[in-house]
Amino acid sequence: MFSVTIRDHMMIAHSLKRDAFGPAQNLHGATYVVDAEFKAPDLDENNIVIDIDIATKELQKALSPLKYHNLDELPQLKGQLTTTEFLAKYIHEQIANAVQGKFAGVLKVTLGESHVAWAAYEGEVA
Amino acid sequence: MFSVTIRDHMMIAHSLKRDAFGPAQNLHGATYVVDAEFKAPDLDENNIVIDIDIATKELQKALSPLKYHNLDELPQLKGQLTTTEFLAKYIHEQIANAVQGKFAGVLKVTLGESHVAWAAYEGEVA
Amino acid sequence: MFSVTIRDHMMIAHSLKRDAFGPAQNLHGATYVVDAEFKAPDLDENNIVIDIDIATKELQKALSPLKYHNLDELPQLKGQLTTTEFLAKYIHEQIANAVQGKFAGVLKVTLGESHVAWAAYEGEVA
Amino acid sequence: MFSVTIRDHMMIAHSLKRDAFGPAQNLHGATYVVDAEFKAPDLDENNIVIDIDIATKELQKALSPLKYHNLDELPQLKGQLTTTEFLAKYIHEQIANAVQGKFAGVLKVTLGESHVAWAAYEGEVA
Amino acid sequence: MFSVTIRDHMMIAHSLKRDAFGPAQNLHGATYVVDAEFKAPDLDENNIVIDIDIATKELQKALSPLKYHNLDELPQLKGQLTTTEFLAKYIHEQIANAVQGKFAGVLKVTLGESHVAWAAYEGEVA
Amino acid sequence: MFSVTIRDHMMIAHSLKRDAFGPAQNLHGATYVVDAEFKAPDLDENNIVIDIDIATKELQKALSPLKYHNLDELPQLKGQLTTTEFLAKYIHEQIANAVQGKFAGVLKVTLGESHVAWAAYEGEVA
Repeated sequence: MFSVTIRDHMMIAHSLKRDAFGPAQNLHGATYVVDAEFKAPDLDENNIVIDIDIATKELQKALSPLKYHNLDELPQLKGQLTTTEFLAKYIHEQIANAVQGKFAGVLKVTLGESHVAWAAYEGEVA
Repeated sequence: MFSVTIRDHMMIAHSLKRDAFGPAQNLHGATYVVDAEFKAPDLDENNIVIDIDIATKELQKALSPLKYHNLDELPQLKGQLTTTEFLAKYIHEQIANAVQGKFAGVLKVTLGESHVAWAAYEGEVA
Repeated sequence: MFSVTIRDHMMIAHSLKRDAFGPAQNLHGATYVVDAEFKAPDLDENNIVIDIDIATKELQKALSPLKYHNLDELPQLKGQLTTTEFLAKYIHEQIANAVQGKFAGVLKVTLGESHVAWAAYEGEVA
Repeated sequence: MFSVTIRDHMMIAHSLKRDAFGPAQNLHGATYVVDAEFKAPDLDENNIVIDIDIATKELQKALSPLKYHNLDELPQLKGQLTTTEFLAKYIHEQIANAVQGKFAGVLKVTLGESHVAWAAYEGEVA
Repeated sequence: MFSVTIRDHMMIAHSLKRDAFGPAQNLHGATYVVDAEFKAPDLDENNIVIDIDIATKELQKALSPLKYHNLDELPQLKGQLTTTEFLAKYIHEQIANAVQGKFAGVLKVTLGESHVAWAAYEGEVA
Repeated sequence: MFSVTIRDHMMIAHSLKRDAFGPAQNLHGATYVVDAEFKAPDLDENNIVIDIDIATKELQKALSPLKYHNLDELPQLKGQLTTTEFLAKYIHEQIANAVQGKFAGVLKVTLGESHVAWAAYEGEVA
């Protein structure tokens, strides 16, 4: 199995409105360092898993509508509990939709929220 | 598949009493930077894999009896060859026992022993 | 010259209300990985620059009122433009005040805001 | 499942002679930080996955013929498109051949090419 | 004293044609992770050391003519021994010239060449 | 001002026998990731601060007598309180003595003891 990973980041505000989240119920924020890892069993005719320019652009496009925003006020996240796990899956879906036809395999999206905590979602891209 | 990882560390002394370990047969020590990664196929009703406070506390509790000790002298490790691999599994067992009922999935424990070497154990939590 | 550095972090929301900041004028947020470096020409009788427990606690106490908050709404930051540079100096002042009498030397506070950008403030502690 | 990982690096020149690679068609170069991860379901009688000295030496031996060379001119890579993915698999093969009989399990070779991009190949060692 | 640092990278080929450099006399290459740190005693009216967009663009512009090139063949480096130290100063000069009038203070340029070695040049920007 | 930094590490046991150190009074241990930074105002005729092979070897030689030992039992550290700060200065002295005549400038030795704490000593090499 081969894989290629690229890194970008976003800075957002949000709040987690459930008792379980303690002080994170407050409006606060995070820098998420976002890694998109593309995995496939074979390389294409250029000896690559995916064109790194396409991967880089699609990661940017997935993060762009979130960057420098308060997620609590974005229509596309209305009523969602935007935990790191949830956001990893949400970004996964954006990229997976965008690369359909250009990439078949597994995509893993990891969000680093600090030097001591991170979360990820991994799933197939059909 | 979702995952959440948290990081802590411990500073311990030990020796590895077999010829195979060369100079590490001496009493020496290590800082282990310990990552506990919890993996599960679904999120709970709070959109999380595991409560991060519970995960953080259980990791601390697993490391606490080892921190600032000479592992050669701890009763619970009597006669054990405390390689990094062994310790990864040992800490895995402590956490796995502690989170039973609060987490079902796979737990991976990674011990970084320097900037150039690390080891891990991964297994199911029933 | 000796130095000791410890690391903590905070997750906050804020906005930077000047044209110069482009999209960062929006309410957004950041994880700041905060390093407090204490520098002194000599060690004390315990061969240390500063008691690491005191340093750790004072860094925590400096970050605690900011953690999980929207800086735009904190009274102590009212009307301030909370750039990373400003926050580095602000945290420096909190720690410097708290360690007076326990530490004499230079304190440097660095705030990492992502894997590609960080800022710092360095000054004397009388 | 247990794993042990060790890190080394190499500095090489090469070019990627296909339109798809844009400016990387030029002769340029890279530092690859190379991680070799050995995974196995059980530990041996020394409580290890693989002797770390053997692992370290075999990784060095796999990188040695490439270090400080222009890959475009090495006979063993003649006519190959030496992408990071390809090199991960190539190094995997060198190590896999060398550790046969000393290690049975899965080997993953990861090449970090910068702070924002890396690639890997993972496969069985018979 | 305040500082702001930003990070970029470049991948280049070169050779160091002196006996002292051993195998690095061969044509080989490197990924340099480049940090540009701007230091100044005071903040401007926007509470910043330098506009981060200007800093980011000027760092990119300094690296752009080198990226994906063989330094041995660039006219502007003709006859130069392009050690990491030399390149740190060369990039420093490019940025220092470009930010004159926009920044007064000290600029430090650090080039990370691997996980175990880096070099830097620090000097005034008039 | 130019600088070059190289990294190595050592794994040691020790104890800090003063009340001030709390649980670190126990025999425990640490991995120290050791950075040796050589600073000088000018480059030599090879465009370098110091021959990186000499620097690497001298760092190794300074760490070698400590690696895989219990510092409490080493004659050369008899009766010393081997804090991280003390060890940074001790290693500084070893390297400074060894490079006399080969390097004139400032040497900084940094010991990383975990992902959240490190210490350093910086001084002239005559």
